[in-house]
Amino acid sequence: MTDTNPNPLPTPSTPPPDILRCASMELVVTDLQRSRDFYVDVLDLVVTEEDEDAIYLRSMEEFIHHNLILRKGDEAAVAAFSYRVRSPEDLDRAEAFYRELGCPVKRNSEGFVKGLGDSVRVQDPLGFPYEFFHEVEHVERLAWRYDLYSPGALVRIDHFNQVTPDVPRAVGYMETLGFRVTEDIQDDAGTTYAAWMRRKPTVHDTAMTGGAGPRMHHVAFATHEKHNILAICDKLGALRLSDHIERGPGRHGVSNAFYLYLRDPDGHRIEVYTQDYYTGDPDNPRVTWDVHDNQRRDWWGNPVVPSWYTEASTVLDLEGRPVPTAERTDDSEMAVTIGADGFSYTRADEGAESMPTWKQGEYKLGHQL
Amino acid sequence: MTDTNPNPLPTPSTPPPDILRCASMELVVTDLQRSRDFYVDVLDLVVTEEDEDAIYLRSMEEFIHHNLILRKGDEAAVAAFSYRVRSPEDLDRAEAFYRELGCPVKRNSEGFVKGLGDSVRVQDPLGFPYEFFHEVEHVERLAWRYDLYSPGALVRIDHFNQVTPDVPRAVGYMETLGFRVTEDIQDDAGTTYAAWMRRKPTVHDTAMTGGAGPRMHHVAFATHEKHNILAICDKLGALRLSDHIERGPGRHGVSNAFYLYLRDPDGHRIEVYTQDYYTGDPDNPRVTWDVHDNQRRDWWGNPVVPSWYTEASTVLDLEGRPVPTAERTDDSEMAVTIGADGFSYTRADEGAESMPTWKQGEYKLGHQL
Amino acid sequence: MTDTNPNPLPTPSTPPPDILRCASMELVVTDLQRSRDFYVDVLDLVVTEEDEDAIYLRSMEEFIHHNLILRKGDEAAVAAFSYRVRSPEDLDRAEAFYRELGCPVKRNSEGFVKGLGDSVRVQDPLGFPYEFFHEVEHVERLAWRYDLYSPGALVRIDHFNQVTPDVPRAVGYMETLGFRVTEDIQDDAGTTYAAWMRRKPTVHDTAMTGGAGPRMHHVAFATHEKHNILAICDKLGALRLSDHIERGPGRHGVSNAFYLYLRDPDGHRIEVYTQDYYTGDPDNPRVTWDVHDNQRRDWWGNPVVPSWYTEASTVLDLEGRPVPTAERTDDSEMAVTIGADGFSYTRADEGAESMPTWKQGEYKLGHQL
Amino acid sequence: MTDTNPNPLPTPSTPPPDILRCASMELVVTDLQRSRDFYVDVLDLVVTEEDEDAIYLRSMEEFIHHNLILRKGDEAAVAAFSYRVRSPEDLDRAEAFYRELGCPVKRNSEGFVKGLGDSVRVQDPLGFPYEFFHEVEHVERLAWRYDLYSPGALVRIDHFNQVTPDVPRAVGYMETLGFRVTEDIQDDAGTTYAAWMRRKPTVHDTAMTGGAGPRMHHVAFATHEKHNILAICDKLGALRLSDHIERGPGRHGVSNAFYLYLRDPDGHRIEVYTQDYYTGDPDNPRVTWDVHDNQRRDWWGNPVVPSWYTEASTVLDLEGRPVPTAERTDDSEMAVTIGADGFSYTRADEGAESMPTWKQGEYKLGHQL
Ligand SMILES: [Ca+2]
Ligand SMILES: [Fe+2]
Ligand SMILES: [Fe+2]
Ligand SMILES: [Fe+2]
Ligand SMILES: [Fe+2]
Repeated sequence: MTDTNPNPLPTPSTPPPDILRCASMELVVTDLQRSRDFYVDVLDLVVTEEDEDAIYLRSMEEFIHHNLILRKGDEAAVAAFSYRVRSPEDLDRAEAFYRELGCPVKRNSEGFVKGLGDSVRVQDPLGFPYEFFHEVEHVERLAWRYDLYSPGALVRIDHFNQVTPDVPRAVGYMETLGFRVTEDIQDDAGTTYAAWMRRKPTVHDTAMTGGAGPRMHHVAFATHEKHNILAICDKLGALRLSDHIERGPGRHGVSNAFYLYLRDPDGHRIEVYTQDYYTGDPDNPRVTWDVHDNQRRDWWGNPVVPSWYTEASTVLDLEGRPVPTAERTDDSEMAVTIGADGFSYTRADEGAESMPTWKQGEYKLGHQL
Repeated sequence: MTDTNPNPLPTPSTPPPDILRCASMELVVTDLQRSRDFYVDVLDLVVTEEDEDAIYLRSMEEFIHHNLILRKGDEAAVAAFSYRVRSPEDLDRAEAFYRELGCPVKRNSEGFVKGLGDSVRVQDPLGFPYEFFHEVEHVERLAWRYDLYSPGALVRIDHFNQVTPDVPRAVGYMETLGFRVTEDIQDDAGTTYAAWMRRKPTVHDTAMTGGAGPRMHHVAFATHEKHNILAICDKLGALRLSDHIERGPGRHGVSNAFYLYLRDPDGHRIEVYTQDYYTGDPDNPRVTWDVHDNQRRDWWGNPVVPSWYTEASTVLDLEGRPVPTAERTDDSEMAVTIGADGFSYTRADEGAESMPTWKQGEYKLGHQL
Repeated sequence: MTDTNPNPLPTPSTPPPDILRCASMELVVTDLQRSRDFYVDVLDLVVTEEDEDAIYLRSMEEFIHHNLILRKGDEAAVAAFSYRVRSPEDLDRAEAFYRELGCPVKRNSEGFVKGLGDSVRVQDPLGFPYEFFHEVEHVERLAWRYDLYSPGALVRIDHFNQVTPDVPRAVGYMETLGFRVTEDIQDDAGTTYAAWMRRKPTVHDTAMTGGAGPRMHHVAFATHEKHNILAICDKLGALRLSDHIERGPGRHGVSNAFYLYLRDPDGHRIEVYTQDYYTGDPDNPRVTWDVHDNQRRDWWGNPVVPSWYTEASTVLDLEGRPVPTAERTDDSEMAVTIGADGFSYTRADEGAESMPTWKQGEYKLGHQL
Repeated sequence: MTDTNPNPLPTPSTPPPDILRCASMELVVTDLQRSRDFYVDVLDLVVTEEDEDAIYLRSMEEFIHHNLILRKGDEAAVAAFSYRVRSPEDLDRAEAFYRELGCPVKRNSEGFVKGLGDSVRVQDPLGFPYEFFHEVEHVERLAWRYDLYSPGALVRIDHFNQVTPDVPRAVGYMETLGFRVTEDIQDDAGTTYAAWMRRKPTVHDTAMTGGAGPRMHHVAFATHEKHNILAICDKLGALRLSDHIERGPGRHGVSNAFYLYLRDPDGHRIEVYTQDYYTGDPDNPRVTWDVHDNQRRDWWGNPVVPSWYTEASTVLDLEGRPVPTAERTDDSEMAVTIGADGFSYTRADEGAESMPTWKQGEYKLGHQL
C-alpha cells in the first residue's frame, strides 16, 4: 500500500482488547413488524427472543444469543457495531483504550441489550458506535437442524462495512485496535478508496469505504453455497419484492466472494456473501486493486449502481442521537470510475477503449444509449 | 393471447416436416482463430472436426456431428438455423411446404455442410435461412466423460432466438410449421412483443422477439446447474474477458430458466441457460407476461441493458447475401419499458411509484442519478 | 442388444395409444397420516386435494391435478401406474389395444380418481395395473413460487420402475405400446437384466428390472440440482429418519443421472433423480452396460445394497387383489454380481482382481472382513 | 467430556509454539509418476515445484510453497505432519517444548524440504513426525485464476487425522500444545473413541482416532461447494478409477461437513471436505456424539466400511524408519458398532430394533442377507 496517512489518530499506550470477530449489529427500524417480515419471513433469520420493542435474530450456525437486533425507533439508524472479545478482561482493555483516545465510553455490567453480560460501548474516533462484549447467553447451534433450513439459509454473520471520509486514517486506527488489512482499492496516485480488515481469518470483519461518514454501509451474512444466494433472489421475485435487490448477485473481485446486496424496508443495506478465503497467516498477502479496474467490485464487470456508492445508514452516538457526517475530501470512487471524468477498464493495458461500445455506456452516469 | 394477426401468411396445403428440435446454428465469423479461442478455449465446446474454413462444435451430451459451425467469412452473419427432422421423408415435406409458400429452396443430398446427409435449405417467409436435415454422422456422446468436463460445461443446444418485426405474423407461420407457443409478452392493448415456441418439450426451440428483422438475436446452450453458468463468468473474469458478458447472470421470468448472455468476438450473442420446465402436454398452459412487469425478463428485476434490445446479427440468404431488414411498426419493448414514456413495475397494483428511487432510475434510458 | 425374446407377446393389430408421459402412481398405504408426514412434511410434495381416504400430491412444476395418490388400505400395494395420453381418442385406442391382448379392461368416463376425466384401467399382459387418461383438472404450476420451495424441492415426476421376470418379453410388449429402449444391462451370453424405456425424451418413463414380478420397484421424482437431493438426506438426518435412505445418493451409470433411493413408511421405494439427457431423436444411441461393470448402477462403484435387488411392492389387479408373482428364471443380477459366484470389476480388462482388497469385499454377500 | 486421562503425558514448563494451522503433509510414495497422475491429473492439485525425487503440490487458494509433498521411497509412509507457526521465535519454543518432553528433535535452519526456511522436526510423544516452520516461500495464490479451476478444485488443506491407541492421552498432550477440542465420540461408560482439535477456527487441524498407532489416517483438502466433491467422484468414474473411492460421499455428523474418502495409489487416505463451521470463540460448545449413533460419522446413516476403521499409513521417525505401532486397549469403534456384539441406532430412544431389517444388516460385519 503506497498511501500515506497524513492525519493519524494517536496510538493508545494501553493494549487493545483481543477482538474475536464481528458478532452483531443493532439496527433501529421504523416499523418493527415490517422489518420482521423481511428478516424472518423472507430471509429466514432465526428469532432467539422478541418483545414489543426489539427482535433478536441469529444465523443457523450461531451459538451466541444474536447476530442482529431490530429495535423500534423513530428514525432508521444503526445503534451498535458489536464485537465479541476473547475474555472478560478484554472489556477493561477496551474501556482503557478508548478512554485514552478521549472517546465517549459507557460500560454496563448487565449488558446494554438482552443476551449479553458485561459490555462496553464507545463512540470511536471515527464516530461509530462500537460495542464490545464477552459474556453471552448460549443458544442452540442449529447447524445440524436441516429440517429448519430454507433454500437461502443464512449461516453466519460475516462482516460489517463502514463509510468514513479518510480511509488511511481509519485503517491506521483499526490497526492499533488489532485489525489487519487483507485487501484495498487504490489508484496510481496513492489515494485509497476502501480497505478490508480482519480479526478472524476471513477477508474481513469490517471494511472502510471512502465517503461521507460515519455511516453504516452494510452488514453481511454468509450462506454455504452460491445457489443459496440465488434462492434468496428467486424468493424475492416470487414475493414481488425483487426491488429489495440493489446490486448483484455477482462475484466480487475484492475478497473473491460471491455476493448480493439487499435493502431492507428502512433502506439498511444487507449483503449476502459466500466463499472468501483463509487469511490467518501473519504474512497473508495483501491484494491491492486499481480503482479503475472494473472487475475489482464485480469480477464479471457488471456495473456498480450509483445508489450503492451514495446511500448508507445514519449511525447513532451513545445518547442515541444521529452522528453528523463529514464529507470525503479525497476523490470519490464513483467520480473516478463512472463520473463524467471517470473511467473503468477490463484490461489495464488496453484501457477503456477496448471495451465494447455498449459496455462503455454502462460506466458513465447519465450515459445510456 | 388476445393479440390478432392481421397480416397472416398463407397456410400450405401440404403437411409440415416433423421437426424434432433445434440442432445447430451456422455462424459466419471474421477471424476463425479468435472465434475458436472463444468457443473452444473459453466456452469449452467440443471440436468434432475442423479445417481452414470452418470449425464444427458440439456440446457434451450431443451424439450428432455438430451444434454450432463457425465458418470464416468477410462479414459476421448467420448462415443457417438448423433443425433436425424425424425421418428422411420429412425433407420432402419441408421442400414441398416451403415451395408452396413461394420461398427460395435448395436441396443437397450430400448435405450443405460436413456431418450431414440430405438437407433442405430455405429462406423462410420471414427472411430467415432455415435448414432441415435428418441424416447425420453419429459421434461420441460425451455425457459420461467427466474427465473432459470443465466447470462451465455446455451440455446441450437449447434454442434459437430470432428478431422479426411482426411477432403475431411470425407465430402464425411457426404454428403452421408445427410449433406451439409456451409463453409470450404482451401489453393490455394486445400488442405482442415476443413469443416462445417449442417442438421438443422444453419452453422453446426458438423464440420470436419483436424488432427490425430478420436478424438473429441469440443461440442458447444448456448447462446442468446454475453454478456452471457462474463458473463461465468467473473464467471470463480470470481471462480479463469479462466484457463479453452483456447481461446477467440472472433468473428469467419467461421460461423460469437461469441465464447468461455473452457476445462472441464478432458480437454474435450466445445465451447460457439452465432449468426450464416440461411443456410436452398439448394443453400445456401458456404463460403471458405483461410487458411492464419488470420481472418478466429478469425475475430479480435487474434491468435489461439497451444493447440487448437493439443489437442482433445479420442473417444471410441462400446465396450468402445479407438479408435487408424491415423495421418493427408496433411499439418496441424498450420504448414502452425504459424509454422516455415507458415504465416498469415490481408490483402491478402499486405501479412504478412503489419502487425505491434508486431502482426507478435503472428503468429510464439516460436517467442515472 | 443381442438378446432374443423367445416368448413374445402378440402384437395387437390396433394402434397403441399415444402416450405422453408417466404421470402419476396410486399407492395404497396402511397409515395415511404417517404417509402424509413422509410425503408432505419430509419430501414437501404439494397437496392438491385430500380427504379421509386419499391424498392427491403433485410436484412443483406440475400443472395437472396429481403425480401421486396415497390411498388408505389394509395392505401396502400399488393400485395404478398412470400415463397421460395425447388426446381423448387415445383412450379408445388403449381400450382396443388391451382388449385385443385379452387383458382385463375397465373404463370410467368420470375417472377412477379425483382430478381425472375419462380413464381406462387395464391389467396389462405382465400383470401391472396401468391407467391411461387425457382429461385432467388443471392446477397452479408452482414453478415460479420460490417462496414455497424447500431445499429439496421435487419438481417433476420422472419415471416408474417395474419388476418383471422376463425382461426381453416385457420390452417387446412395451415397444408395441410405443416405448423405445434407451439403455439396458446385459451380459456376454445375451441375458438382459434390465431395460429403460421412454416416451417423453428423457432416459425413461419406465424401466423393467428382472426379478419376481409383477412388482413395483420404485417411482421417481426429479429435482433441479444435485444439492437438492443432498438436502433431502440432510433433512432426514435432522429428523432422525435417515433409515429411510436405502441406497445413495450417487451417480447412476445407466442414465447418467444423480440419484437417491428412499423407502416410505410402508416400504414403497421412492427415487429422487436429476440430470439425465435428451433422448428424443429416433436414432438416439442405445447404451448397453455389462452386468459385471460395477459402475453400471453406481458410477462411483458404491455397492448396491441387497434389499434394493430383492424388495419391491405388491401390485393390485383391477379388483384390488394382490397380483401373484412369478419367479425370474434367467440369472439374477444380484447373483451374478455379488452372489457367491458373482463378480464385478472397475476395469473390464483387468477384471475384479485389480480392485483393492477392501473394495472386493463389498461385492460379495456375506463377505465382510 | 466425561472421560478421564489416567496416563497423562507431562506438561512442559515452557510455552508451546503458537501454531497457526496444519499446513502440509509429506508422503512417501513408491511410484512417483503414478502418484503424480493421481494428485495432479486426477485431483488437479497444483505443482509448485518438482524434481526426480519429490513433487511439491498446493491447493488453489494457498500462497505458501506447498500443502503436500510426494517423495519417492521404497515403502509407503508419512514423513511429516507439518504445521505453520506464527513467528520465527515459535520454532525456539517448539524445540524447547519437545526437548523438555524428551522427544527426538532436529532443527534445520535451511528447512528439511524445499520452500521452507528454519524448521523443527520432532518425533512427538505419540510417535508422530511433527514439523514446525514459519519462513516459507510465497507463491501465487490462484484463488482468482478461474481459468485454472477444474470441476473438483481443491482450494485449501483442511486437516490431518491420526490414529493413536489412547485418545484421552493424545488429547491431553495436544491441549498442552495449544489445541482445543471441538467434537468427540464417546460412549456411556466414558470411553473416548475419537476427538477433533483445532488451532485455526474450523472444526479441526487434526483429529485423533482410536486404534493401533501411531499411524496416519488421512489428510483432508477443502472444496468450495458440495458439487465439487461429486465432480471428483464423477471424474474417477470416467477414468475407471472409481475403486479409489473408499467411503462416501456423504455428510458427516461430526463437523457437519460434506465429505469423501479416497485412497491414493499407495493406499494413503485422502479426504475431500467442505462446509464445517466457525469454532473460534473460546467457549465454542463441544459436541459429543454417542458411538452407537449411526449418524455420528455419516449423518445419512450410510455405513462406515471396515477398511476405513482398520487401515492407515505407517509413519516414519526422524531417521526415516517405520515407527512400530501399539494396539488400542480400549474398545474399538468398529467392534462396538458393527462387530458381533456391536450395535448402532438411528433413534436413541428406539434402539437398533426400530431400523428396517435391511438397514440393520448393514451394521453387522459378515451379516448380509
Ligand atoms: Ca447482475
Ligand atoms: Fe461486504
Ligand atoms: Fe434465450
Ligand atoms: Fe429409477
Ligand atoms: Fe477428516
